[in-house]
Amino acid sequence: MDETGTNPGTATVAESHTEMTEMLLPNDTNNLGRALGGTVLHWMDICGGIAGMRFSGHEVVTASMDHVDFIGPIEMGEVAVIEGYVFNTGRTSLDVKIDVQAEDPCEGQRRPTTSSFFTFVALDDDGNPTRVPDVTAPTAEEQALRDDAIEGRREQLRAVTERYDL
Amino acid sequence: MDETGTNPGTATVAESHTEMTEMLLPNDTNNLGRALGGTVLHWMDICGGIAGMRFSGHEVVTASMDHVDFIGPIEMGEVAVIEGYVFNTGRTSLDVKIDVQAEDPCEGQRRPTTSSFFTFVALDDDGNPTRVPDVTAPTAEEQALRDDAIEGRREQLRAVTERYDL
Amino acid sequence: MDETGTNPGTATVAESHTEMTEMLLPNDTNNLGRALGGTVLHWMDICGGIAGMRFSGHEVVTASMDHVDFIGPIEMGEVAVIEGYVFNTGRTSLDVKIDVQAEDPCEGQRRPTTSSFFTFVALDDDGNPTRVPDVTAPTAEEQALRDDAIEGRREQLRAVTERYDL
Amino acid sequence: MDETGTNPGTATVAESHTEMTEMLLPNDTNNLGRALGGTVLHWMDICGGIAGMRFSGHEVVTASMDHVDFIGPIEMGEVAVIEGYVFNTGRTSLDVKIDVQAEDPCEGQRRPTTSSFFTFVALDDDGNPTRVPDVTAPTAEEQALRDDAIEGRREQLRAVTERYDL
Amino acid sequence: MDETGTNPGTATVAESHTEMTEMLLPNDTNNLGRALGGTVLHWMDICGGIAGMRFSGHEVVTASMDHVDFIGPIEMGEVAVIEGYVFNTGRTSLDVKIDVQAEDPCEGQRRPTTSSFFTFVALDDDGNPTRVPDVTAPTAEEQALRDDAIEGRREQLRAVTERYDL
Amino acid sequence: MDETGTNPGTATVAESHTEMTEMLLPNDTNNLGRALGGTVLHWMDICGGIAGMRFSGHEVVTASMDHVDFIGPIEMGEVAVIEGYVFNTGRTSLDVKIDVQAEDPCEGQRRPTTSSFFTFVALDDDGNPTRVPDVTAPTAEEQALRDDAIEGRREQLRAVTERYDL
Repeated sequence: MDETGTNPGTATVAESHTEMTEMLLPNDTNNLGRALGGTVLHWMDICGGIAGMRFSGHEVVTASMDHVDFIGPIEMGEVAVIEGYVFNTGRTSLDVKIDVQAEDPCEGQRRPTTSSFFTFVALDDDGNPTRVPDVTAPTAEEQALRDDAIEGRREQLRAVTERYDL
Repeated sequence: MDETGTNPGTATVAESHTEMTEMLLPNDTNNLGRALGGTVLHWMDICGGIAGMRFSGHEVVTASMDHVDFIGPIEMGEVAVIEGYVFNTGRTSLDVKIDVQAEDPCEGQRRPTTSSFFTFVALDDDGNPTRVPDVTAPTAEEQALRDDAIEGRREQLRAVTERYDL
Repeated sequence: MDETGTNPGTATVAESHTEMTEMLLPNDTNNLGRALGGTVLHWMDICGGIAGMRFSGHEVVTASMDHVDFIGPIEMGEVAVIEGYVFNTGRTSLDVKIDVQAEDPCEGQRRPTTSSFFTFVALDDDGNPTRVPDVTAPTAEEQALRDDAIEGRREQLRAVTERYDL
Repeated sequence: MDETGTNPGTATVAESHTEMTEMLLPNDTNNLGRALGGTVLHWMDICGGIAGMRFSGHEVVTASMDHVDFIGPIEMGEVAVIEGYVFNTGRTSLDVKIDVQAEDPCEGQRRPTTSSFFTFVALDDDGNPTRVPDVTAPTAEEQALRDDAIEGRREQLRAVTERYDL
Repeated sequence: MDETGTNPGTATVAESHTEMTEMLLPNDTNNLGRALGGTVLHWMDICGGIAGMRFSGHEVVTASMDHVDFIGPIEMGEVAVIEGYVFNTGRTSLDVKIDVQAEDPCEGQRRPTTSSFFTFVALDDDGNPTRVPDVTAPTAEEQALRDDAIEGRREQLRAVTERYDL
Repeated sequence: MDETGTNPGTATVAESHTEMTEMLLPNDTNNLGRALGGTVLHWMDICGGIAGMRFSGHEVVTASMDHVDFIGPIEMGEVAVIEGYVFNTGRTSLDVKIDVQAEDPCEGQRRPTTSSFFTFVALDDDGNPTRVPDVTAPTAEEQALRDDAIEGRREQLRAVTERYDL
């Protein structure tokens, strides 16, 4: 399918920033009373989709998700804080970093749960891929987020490659 | 029931701040494709509960919700941004202001949908009301949020009283 | 928006009466195993909407909800009985009283949980506000329900005004 | 498993009567925008369970459901009215008739959708079958409901037997 | 309504075979932590509908469901395995046998939970009943499944008739 | 945490095989009427979890999920067929390949939607990692599935590495 649209200029990392807070309900948990991995992945995908729409001004569909390590559980009674931002773009695609933290709202500490990198494709009203803005990071904070994502994706892939001994 | 616990000191408006972003899914909508009022109320209650737990360090239960005016719809395909913070406390109770905004993520503007004021009661591990910290607003921004909530609650009640001609 | 439709005559309190019975399922409960306030508010809104449609013969949307006091919990394993009826009308709006009771179906007693007053607006097929019937109360029972709602709303507002010391 | 409990006396048809009203939401419908058969069966089972608990004062589990004919659809935007009552009892079992009607709340007519007969078994706190009250029908209306159910079950079974040519 | 379509030839039992595996989540269970009867009926209906669409190449709606005996519970933490196949056809209708088994995935044994027989009607794009293929059973295994269903339906009806003493 | 349990012998690829069939309901879809990526990831995680429990005889939790490419949509009205099997094991971990296909049940063709590789960890009753059986592939078909998964994981990782130009 050919892409549509002319170059829509630029948008910033900050414009895409999306924060979700989700209370863990019983149906989100397994027999051990911990968040189902699939529930967390669902939230990550929705968070990334909103970030992508905010950035591009278009409907987006999930094209891919990178490797995901679940480094800690979210327990029943806790909340999940899901944050995402666009850190890179292709002509019609958007790369979004998503971080999930578990928080016991009565204790206040947040613990990292998982991070990953999604790629979304922007679609026009006929459902064809369409041009997205280039990403800019006008503040130091945005630039740091961008660098963190680009390097983090590379690091993760290296770690996975080593782990599987390729 | 007697309250439990000793005076737990203070907590800030900012410590309670909670932001939820919710994608409107089909089951959240009525026959006109707009968010059900009850769905919005449900999100407000959860947002307020998280704000109350973050502030007090205790489980909380909803004691009351003030008058709610739905001043604009949230359409299918939009997201709801729900924000809440504690602005006042009693010995065992917490007053939380909740604001809901509708956002077309492809357009970026947010429109106010509704605001209200919830009261939650903090419970100890036996389910009895327990002391909560006093609220402080160490920054000008927090103080402004506090004033805005205290005055807003008064204004809303006055407006409702007039409307019903009491 | 201008209202549409000509005066559609009258409808009775009884014609609007709506009774819902809802079994509390795990996802309707908080960490204490009690109904989430937001779940109860959701049921109230749906009950009021059905009452409004039955009364007016039109789709309705939630315009506002009065103050709500949660005076008792609904425990896991209990059912909620939600009842609503139209007690007042404007040109395009409907006032609905909603009562929620908690019932342990194995014990039979019902305990009041909360009551409130919703206002709905009737919409025609284009989504514009449209005229609603005037409410009549042809039986003594209906008149009592009407009086109870009108006085109850006033009482509640007075109590809230006092509580907040306005 | 041996049954437990001593004869708990009697309970009336009216004491078991349960009425549910359910708004059809998108997730309750198939590709034609009509209620899924399984959604209707789910509501019938819950309605029957509540009727059985109200009658017996015990938790109940579904033992069987008779033949069900879906004689008409429930369309998106309509509500389902589900009614149930106990019409017969064994030592530890309860027979419940369930009727489902479709109602366009803007039109007011109700159309029969389906009826069936469930059998529930009452359980004590250890999960063993336990004695249930005998059913009585102290009013003419209750007796009519009972007769209607007993005869209706017989009729339905005869019709099914003929249809399958046994 | 007149049926539509010309004779669409034949389809096999195997072409309709459908297997679903469902993890029991908290909201699928009653107060005893066992699958709600209605949840199981819902899964059976969906399984039957997929089998009917696979067989006929048309949307289908549930016309009826035979008597259902729940012969054993599905416990929280278990999975339900639901299997269905078309065993008989009319001009526009399809008879589907559905079997449900409970499985503790950590133990491996499956226990029969319930079986029943659904009838679906195939609809064309205008929602009118339409011709369905005749069923064939080209392999011995398919023929055995067919015979098992035809005889099982008869047996079940006989057993119910005796139980109700008709 | 130390692992628990002694070597539990072996289990076969076939013993872990799990097939789920899911009807796409409205709440599973985005504004374009296609399956949400997150819904598909949720199903994959549940399928993998069941495969892991069947294989190991223990509760399992999701440790990681490899890169996922969504190579085609699942449209409203279609079903998803999700299949999974264990192809590799560590001392306490299980590698599971999951394939998702989209099927229009009225057309019969299945189209690949996505594939990925999950790692689960088996837990004993105290929630500690515990020994899992070694995987064997006693039939040629099982061996082919195993080889396919081991090679597929490697291929996918190589493709991702190239794509990101590492």
